[in-house]
Amino acid sequence: MDFRYDDRTVELQERLLAFMDEMVHPAEAVAARQLAAAENEWTRPPVMAELKAEARRRGLWNLFLPGTEHGGAGLTNLQYAPLAEITGHVPHLAPEALNCAAPDTGNMELLAEFGSPEQRKRWLEPLLEGEIRSAFCMTEPEVASSDAANIATRIERDGDHYVINGRKWWSSGAMDPTCEIFIVMGRTDPDAPKHKQQSMILVPRDTPGVQVLRGMHVFGYTDGAHGGHAEVVFDDVRVPAENLIAGEGMGFAIAQARLGPGRIHHCMRLIGMAERGLELMCRRAVSRTAFGKTLAEQGVVQEWIAESRVRIEQLRLLVLKTAWLMDTVGNKGAHTEIQAIKIATPSTVEWILDKAIQAHGGGGISQDFPLAQLWASARTLRFADGPDEVHRRSLAHRELKPYRAEATSN
Amino acid sequence: MDFRYDDRTVELQERLLAFMDEMVHPAEAVAARQLAAAENEWTRPPVMAELKAEARRRGLWNLFLPGTEHGGAGLTNLQYAPLAEITGHVPHLAPEALNCAAPDTGNMELLAEFGSPEQRKRWLEPLLEGEIRSAFCMTEPEVASSDAANIATRIERDGDHYVINGRKWWSSGAMDPTCEIFIVMGRTDPDAPKHKQQSMILVPRDTPGVQVLRGMHVFGYTDGAHGGHAEVVFDDVRVPAENLIAGEGMGFAIAQARLGPGRIHHCMRLIGMAERGLELMCRRAVSRTAFGKTLAEQGVVQEWIAESRVRIEQLRLLVLKTAWLMDTVGNKGAHTEIQAIKIATPSTVEWILDKAIQAHGGGGISQDFPLAQLWASARTLRFADGPDEVHRRSLAHRELKPYRAEATSN
Amino acid sequence: MDFRYDDRTVELQERLLAFMDEMVHPAEAVAARQLAAAENEWTRPPVMAELKAEARRRGLWNLFLPGTEHGGAGLTNLQYAPLAEITGHVPHLAPEALNCAAPDTGNMELLAEFGSPEQRKRWLEPLLEGEIRSAFCMTEPEVASSDAANIATRIERDGDHYVINGRKWWSSGAMDPTCEIFIVMGRTDPDAPKHKQQSMILVPRDTPGVQVLRGMHVFGYTDGAHGGHAEVVFDDVRVPAENLIAGEGMGFAIAQARLGPGRIHHCMRLIGMAERGLELMCRRAVSRTAFGKTLAEQGVVQEWIAESRVRIEQLRLLVLKTAWLMDTVGNKGAHTEIQAIKIATPSTVEWILDKAIQAHGGGGISQDFPLAQLWASARTLRFADGPDEVHRRSLAHRELKPYRAEATSN
Amino acid sequence: MDFRYDDRTVELQERLLAFMDEMVHPAEAVAARQLAAAENEWTRPPVMAELKAEARRRGLWNLFLPGTEHGGAGLTNLQYAPLAEITGHVPHLAPEALNCAAPDTGNMELLAEFGSPEQRKRWLEPLLEGEIRSAFCMTEPEVASSDAANIATRIERDGDHYVINGRKWWSSGAMDPTCEIFIVMGRTDPDAPKHKQQSMILVPRDTPGVQVLRGMHVFGYTDGAHGGHAEVVFDDVRVPAENLIAGEGMGFAIAQARLGPGRIHHCMRLIGMAERGLELMCRRAVSRTAFGKTLAEQGVVQEWIAESRVRIEQLRLLVLKTAWLMDTVGNKGAHTEIQAIKIATPSTVEWILDKAIQAHGGGGISQDFPLAQLWASARTLRFADGPDEVHRRSLAHRELKPYRAEATSN
Repeated sequence: MDFRYDDRTVELQERLLAFMDEMVHPAEAVAARQLAAAENEWTRPPVMAELKAEARRRGLWNLFLPGTEHGGAGLTNLQYAPLAEITGHVPHLAPEALNCAAPDTGNMELLAEFGSPEQRKRWLEPLLEGEIRSAFCMTEPEVASSDAANIATRIERDGDHYVINGRKWWSSGAMDPTCEIFIVMGRTDPDAPKHKQQSMILVPRDTPGVQVLRGMHVFGYTDGAHGGHAEVVFDDVRVPAENLIAGEGMGFAIAQARLGPGRIHHCMRLIGMAERGLELMCRRAVSRTAFGKTLAEQGVVQEWIAESRVRIEQLRLLVLKTAWLMDTVGNKGAHTEIQAIKIATPSTVEWILDKAIQAHGGGGISQDFPLAQLWASARTLRFADGPDEVHRRSLAHRELKPYRAEATSN
Repeated sequence: MDFRYDDRTVELQERLLAFMDEMVHPAEAVAARQLAAAENEWTRPPVMAELKAEARRRGLWNLFLPGTEHGGAGLTNLQYAPLAEITGHVPHLAPEALNCAAPDTGNMELLAEFGSPEQRKRWLEPLLEGEIRSAFCMTEPEVASSDAANIATRIERDGDHYVINGRKWWSSGAMDPTCEIFIVMGRTDPDAPKHKQQSMILVPRDTPGVQVLRGMHVFGYTDGAHGGHAEVVFDDVRVPAENLIAGEGMGFAIAQARLGPGRIHHCMRLIGMAERGLELMCRRAVSRTAFGKTLAEQGVVQEWIAESRVRIEQLRLLVLKTAWLMDTVGNKGAHTEIQAIKIATPSTVEWILDKAIQAHGGGGISQDFPLAQLWASARTLRFADGPDEVHRRSLAHRELKPYRAEATSN
Repeated sequence: MDFRYDDRTVELQERLLAFMDEMVHPAEAVAARQLAAAENEWTRPPVMAELKAEARRRGLWNLFLPGTEHGGAGLTNLQYAPLAEITGHVPHLAPEALNCAAPDTGNMELLAEFGSPEQRKRWLEPLLEGEIRSAFCMTEPEVASSDAANIATRIERDGDHYVINGRKWWSSGAMDPTCEIFIVMGRTDPDAPKHKQQSMILVPRDTPGVQVLRGMHVFGYTDGAHGGHAEVVFDDVRVPAENLIAGEGMGFAIAQARLGPGRIHHCMRLIGMAERGLELMCRRAVSRTAFGKTLAEQGVVQEWIAESRVRIEQLRLLVLKTAWLMDTVGNKGAHTEIQAIKIATPSTVEWILDKAIQAHGGGGISQDFPLAQLWASARTLRFADGPDEVHRRSLAHRELKPYRAEATSN
Repeated sequence: MDFRYDDRTVELQERLLAFMDEMVHPAEAVAARQLAAAENEWTRPPVMAELKAEARRRGLWNLFLPGTEHGGAGLTNLQYAPLAEITGHVPHLAPEALNCAAPDTGNMELLAEFGSPEQRKRWLEPLLEGEIRSAFCMTEPEVASSDAANIATRIERDGDHYVINGRKWWSSGAMDPTCEIFIVMGRTDPDAPKHKQQSMILVPRDTPGVQVLRGMHVFGYTDGAHGGHAEVVFDDVRVPAENLIAGEGMGFAIAQARLGPGRIHHCMRLIGMAERGLELMCRRAVSRTAFGKTLAEQGVVQEWIAESRVRIEQLRLLVLKTAWLMDTVGNKGAHTEIQAIKIATPSTVEWILDKAIQAHGGGGISQDFPLAQLWASARTLRFADGPDEVHRRSLAHRELKPYRAEATSN
């Protein structure tokens, strides 16, 4: 057992931290001004193009992509995780600057693993170049989408085409005008076994019948800088049959494959968000005075700071171990741990950010600090891929399995 | 001891509930559409004027105002509290419809109690008529304003005028174009004893030197429908000396007098918000199915519902008792309880609303349900009149006082 | 609505507080010495007889008993509740000193309401005199006893007798050598409807076949001073048919009737225990110094104290309202509130006592302060009459009922 | 970074688990019977001698001791930690069976590192042989002992002797009749700098003036099987000057050196206790039925189980990383992490054990399951080496240090 980061990780951490200090942190205020002056809330801030060019120049591009075949940096999950953490310090700029932003990362992995050569050429390549963005259309407003069996959108074969009908929401990134391609989950065969009914299909945004209705709000935020979260109606949308990914009935399997890395990335970024929150809390604590003492001298604030540190250290280790398990025994072998980090991370980071907000007084909930928006992201991730309650239920089932077997055999 | 509402309260509850059902709930969607179509976020939705006219017609106007001298309904705090609760079901419409919205209520009480006849005629009357709105400029960005001794804004005598210099924020309502008058807290005499340094003064919004800079955001919301929360700079603002309220050095005393009723109102509305959240949670629970059962049949959701009910019942009783104490022994005699409800209510209601959100999945954090915005209001109130921590500290001091005395005398 | 205690309550509170100060508090150390020197852990400390005689002399006897018919003081639940609270300051001495200790109180109420004249003469009278004690044998080790349908003990008619077979545990008081009578719950008719299967029967402790096996421990305590918590086996125990209480099939109804007042009493005593804990915490806080400041000056301890006060105030009001409801609309009408206080009180008081312990360092968990034993009592009450989870489940069902009906009718 | 246990650890884990299954678990009931039948509560159960002999035979002896010089197994902290965890499954038998029980382990390490050759021969050797036991006399009843500067016991030079006067409590193990030697912390020079005033000295239990007054209780338990927790008075106790350990003024430094490994051991055992609790909770959940379903099928219990697993995984990793840091950068370099595990582990394990208790109903708090006693141990450890609050305060200071420096330099 060894808790040291390897040399390549350390080198990349240093390089990325330098990029954050020199480019990303200074760009925070610039992007805010550009967004405030923008025509509408979905406009990309021009500074992003500069960040992307510079990240690429510095060799900080597509770090998330496993293997080197498609231009990935060849990092393991364990090597990438601490880098994803660092991008969490500025989650609305840094991940995209490195072409490592959700949902594009998951979509690129999906295309790399399951896409046909034609699909990869047409969509994966421009995504890897950072020329276009993509959306993943899974969740539906009418059903508890954490249970894949509930998905109601239909994908029906009609000659050389598939016809798609359904309503999706929380399709993140789809409000971005550069978002050109949607990966849509739907049912091709309602009579197949439960996990063989679904398929995934590529739907270009400009296909007739695709209506991007509106952006969903997250608390009061539109997350415009991320491309928002769209509600999308698919009304008799026809796409060529070759747009289907990996074959009919593969939807559930692809979704499962997509989840593991996605959660690791989310969780590592959340840890970076927690570190940012703790840093701001400490900075505030030493500079603000109330009732004759700085906040840093007040026991209640000290408890927040200590608890935050103690919780972050535990979370990070569990996420890193999960990454290591994915690398060594595969996503399936890491199933329990992947679920564990999904349960533990968003709610813990939410707690830390709440305390950081409280230490800032009214400013903490306002646009003057990044804390309220970071908090809203953490809160939102308590729903991503299903609410915490679903994950706890599933993890408990696995924990109880041997005891159930034992009880039955008695 | 008797836990029954008196007849007048019961009659008014019924009348108000009918108004809510017939007018306010139907107006929720109307107001949302009007706001979405409005020129800017500070525009008042036209439906408000209709609600106000109808509330007045039904005898549901200025219920908050103690006594009958200035047109108040003559209700005690104990009688008004359950009515304020009901307005909390739709906090962005109902309180204003009844001319019972903060900060106007506190400002009207202040003017009724401390204003000169001229001040009352000029400002209190149009406020009581609901013709104009008002703001209360207390909190400052640079200092921990929960400690009044920190207030930095200066109010200096210059002949027949006072000259005001300072920067305020979280001046709620001040973004509303109909907000015509600001009550500003500042220091007139920095050399006086700590609680005699401050004064309050009336500053018409159109006075030269008053700059309403921007609206502060609350978790992404601008609270435009409430008139927002402004940052305001006062730069050599001159007003006639007779604009001073109740005399130099009275600022702290007036602020104290204003707090008690303000907190009761906030807390009662919060309880109404919690009831709304619980109602939505129950409605969702019986209508949503996941993993083969409705949420209502799932133990975890049952725990949320039961805990919510148990906590609401406790909170309401404590708030009602506090109102009764204010009526019978005065605000000073109710000091501990006023602080206790300020500590207990926002955080508990925040917890209930969080669970209601969780039961709604992604929808819960979006604009499709009122829950996320209700949550943001509850979270914000953990800061109002100083953060919870300040109130706990102060309440502990009072609890410890007899023991300290005892320890010293030994 | 009126939050004042009535005159009779105030007078009795004063009289009882004087008795606590003059008699009970001084007896705490005496009883501890007597118990330490006793032959075995079930010996009654001799000081108890003195306390009982004095309480009786002062008119503080059988206050719990509704009506005056059987020698009760004629207090309402609302009048008795604040007196029960005071006995909670010294829960192992004061309730018994007043002949107001569980389970005797519930058993006496049961006999007063459901007992035949002969049963009342034989058992109720000596109980009211404080000459004997009694036990209530309900819970069973093998089943989840919170669901009455699970009760497995059999009570079978055989000529003029009933024959009882079964195993009970947590029969509180049954280790006390003066405990002479057991009220036993069992099934007389397993084929009857679910809530008509059970009956209750009087079993004198010295009946052949009754084996008091052992005392259950509560954490490491035997609760010897309360008569412990016995495991009892009933092995072909024969008692005359007239020992049956109120008729076959009445067991569930009697149990329900017994619960309401029992919970009120428990909860009020718990609030007294919380007040004791808070008092000790404050006393410690002003007298103990660490890192150059008294605990009372440390923010973390201040938070504990403030939160404790805020929670106690809320709990007390809810318990008092519940008592008032029982008096005005009956136990059935107060069902939700009775459950609510059962859910809220033990866990909240446990929290307060935990903080009081923490403020005492190692001493807090030891025999040098009453805190650890008070804590163990509060923790135990999270199980009494079924665990918290069962009560929350049931309360949620009632809260959801109107929504279910609405959902069904749509 | 690598999360695999090394081969030696894996081999020892297997060997130890076999010993637990074959010897220790079967001995649990035996020891309980022997203790129940024992003359007094401080009697050692005879089965312990058998366990010790067998552990030694199997090469499971003194595993805790670093290096091999004094007969230690030469394990690193990282290798020993997972073994200590396993002993936590039966904490009142397994650690002592392996001669790895506190406080002997800390005392042996202390003597190995700081003892003179004579001290080691006289006391370390019989301790390593498991022939005698020892106590560590640090905490005092009159002062907040978490602040070493408060220690009041005096150790004064008088010719060739030292004379000791003071009162200690929570001297764990000192009630054990085989406990022959006390290591006592006291002040030799009150005028020296704060951390040079204290010294440690060896005091044989039978020295005149040593009075072992009584055993402290822990929630009703005497912890007799561990040798209890004694209150000890030192009244003009004279020992030869050569009994001083390592020189005058070294007391604080020795105490610091002793703490790191002690906490790791405590925390690892706590994790083993949590695993035991979780195992019992799962076993109960599959075997107990309430309201028509096993507990394992009820959402609330599933949440407990899932949360327990998630928290255990995080804790274990943090403890293991701390062990690794101690091995690689030393106790000083691991200071933050040592404090972090002390903060996180006892309270988290307490939470898990509370849930396991709740799943067991009344049985959970009784002597029929080990849960209540495990809980009491975890609760007690929230005080060991100072309460959690002291550790959080200290950790926060370290976290804030760079920000303080930065704020000062601006």
